[in-house]
Amino acid sequence: MLSEFSLIDRYFAQRARAHTRRATLGIGDDCALIAPPPGEVLAVSTDMLVEGRHFLPNVDPHALGHKALAVNLSDLAAMGAAPLGFTLAFSLPAPREDWLAAFSAGLFELADRYDCELIGGDTTAGPLNLCLTIFGSVPPQHALRRDAARPGDDVWVSGTPGDARAGLGLLRGEWTTNETDAAVLRRALERPEPRVALGLALRGVAHAALDVSDGLAGDLLHILERSNVAALIDADAPPKSAALAKLPRDVQRQCALAGGDDYELCFTAPPDRRAAVEAAAQQAGVRATRIGTITALDPADPQRATPSISWRDASGAPLNLTLQGFDHFHAD
Amino acid sequence: MLSEFSLIDRYFAQRARAHTRRATLGIGDDCALIAPPPGEVLAVSTDMLVEGRHFLPNVDPHALGHKALAVNLSDLAAMGAAPLGFTLAFSLPAPREDWLAAFSAGLFELADRYDCELIGGDTTAGPLNLCLTIFGSVPPQHALRRDAARPGDDVWVSGTPGDARAGLGLLRGEWTTNETDAAVLRRALERPEPRVALGLALRGVAHAALDVSDGLAGDLLHILERSNVAALIDADAPPKSAALAKLPRDVQRQCALAGGDDYELCFTAPPDRRAAVEAAAQQAGVRATRIGTITALDPADPQRATPSISWRDASGAPLNLTLQGFDHFHAD
Repeated sequence: MLSEFSLIDRYFAQRARAHTRRATLGIGDDCALIAPPPGEVLAVSTDMLVEGRHFLPNVDPHALGHKALAVNLSDLAAMGAAPLGFTLAFSLPAPREDWLAAFSAGLFELADRYDCELIGGDTTAGPLNLCLTIFGSVPPQHALRRDAARPGDDVWVSGTPGDARAGLGLLRGEWTTNETDAAVLRRALERPEPRVALGLALRGVAHAALDVSDGLAGDLLHILERSNVAALIDADAPPKSAALAKLPRDVQRQCALAGGDDYELCFTAPPDRRAAVEAAAQQAGVRATRIGTITALDPADPQRATPSISWRDASGAPLNLTLQGFDHFHAD
Repeated sequence: MLSEFSLIDRYFAQRARAHTRRATLGIGDDCALIAPPPGEVLAVSTDMLVEGRHFLPNVDPHALGHKALAVNLSDLAAMGAAPLGFTLAFSLPAPREDWLAAFSAGLFELADRYDCELIGGDTTAGPLNLCLTIFGSVPPQHALRRDAARPGDDVWVSGTPGDARAGLGLLRGEWTTNETDAAVLRRALERPEPRVALGLALRGVAHAALDVSDGLAGDLLHILERSNVAALIDADAPPKSAALAKLPRDVQRQCALAGGDDYELCFTAPPDRRAAVEAAAQQAGVRATRIGTITALDPADPQRATPSISWRDASGAPLNLTLQGFDHFHAD
């Protein structure tokens, strides 16, 4: 096991030690020591990625390193938290140097861009499994909670949701497209860009927020349930990328509304903050689009008696959407 | 997957929500929010447990729930940190209600005893894998770091190291004993008791500390390397439990010095703090035994030119111990 030890040391521990800044004490002791800035609290999230479930066995390890951290940074973004550091635990069947080199390069390129420090870890032999726990900081009064949506709020989404699911469909042979667009859609699946800058810019502007990992329809429902409200959503409002727009119309809608793995932010904000939302999006360099409205629950109306989404088309006419059964990459 | 969701919800999320006290925001949002008490920092540790590597496939799930948290609490103990909370990510091949019920019971019984709150998690389908990340708090000046051993320090160990390895040997058929002793040794392996109270009592008393997960000899070396010192250790000083003392003499020594999974604390303290160490151990209800001394490196002496352990017998005569090749449960 000596070679494993030295490989892990070369690609992770040495580097983490060299980059320790925020953690009082990092890799190599029983615990890392870390503290949020004065007046702020730590935001913590953990995600486990399993081969065959969250990524394909033949995934490019550089892309996997990127994505493993990206999905965790996305959780911080959805909370309006600034990245501080992360721990990485993984099991590997047999450590291969080329694999570790590429994986760690993909991981640290993203970590460096967001100034997010590896502060601890654990490695073991076993079926490929990656578990990251990420730490950020946020003033508690600015945290973008799921339970903070209010009736009358606009519902917004960032970016062009659906691209990742369209990319997965290409890999699965569910549909085809030209090579250029295929590369765009695969990139959305394999190298999602966490919306950290947008989350930070939305502090004090947005009410509720989350990141879209399991599909817009299902994830928005989490906000509705925790905020005890309903929503009226224009099914065609989420903007389509040029690449997605070339696929069949029903595929576009299903990908945009029920496709997972985009890691765009879905958030609510009061209508009098529309200019502030637009400014935040511009500052973050990402598009934000209004797709609907939060409504109060109405016990007298069976459509709005419980937290749920009422779909509309562009003309405002009710739409009966069937999004069930359109599975995305990780269906758990 | 609905039944999986509802099982996870019943055994983990519902309970975690009901018990949220320390976390400003716990399970159900993108991140948990948590802060250390004023003047303290967070101590963070992550451990991944894999079937066949850290536990046997036929492990009692109640014991596994206990041990998964115990090994993490032990990392806090070794830092002198007070438990606050933990995240739990796991993958399961197929969720069985009886398994989840027993696992969660073992986990939460220990969590409750140490007032350590589940603040977040992730579950997925996949080969059985458990990843816990634990959070504690400690005043930074009282953290028991591995790099704090000083020449002249006494070396101490808690409890009766070796029992867990002796228990593993019984399961593996490497040796046998009577049923009562077998139960004691198996319990040491399956239900280690984290030395949290001792770690807290050693704040301001001990210099360096760690928990013995991979064997006393190998783990003490981590303190020596990080503190840049050597050690003179009486190989027979670690006390043997009555159960271990009935096994062959060479087995006793190998188990006590090279056996892993005990999760006892090994720590150093200046000789003028011997009474304070004894008082701390008494307060924590655990035995602490002096087993040797930290010495300065001596470039002129090949035996002590680099961080290493010089073994002695009870009479003080040098001992040539071969501990290599005595593998314990997790050899990575």
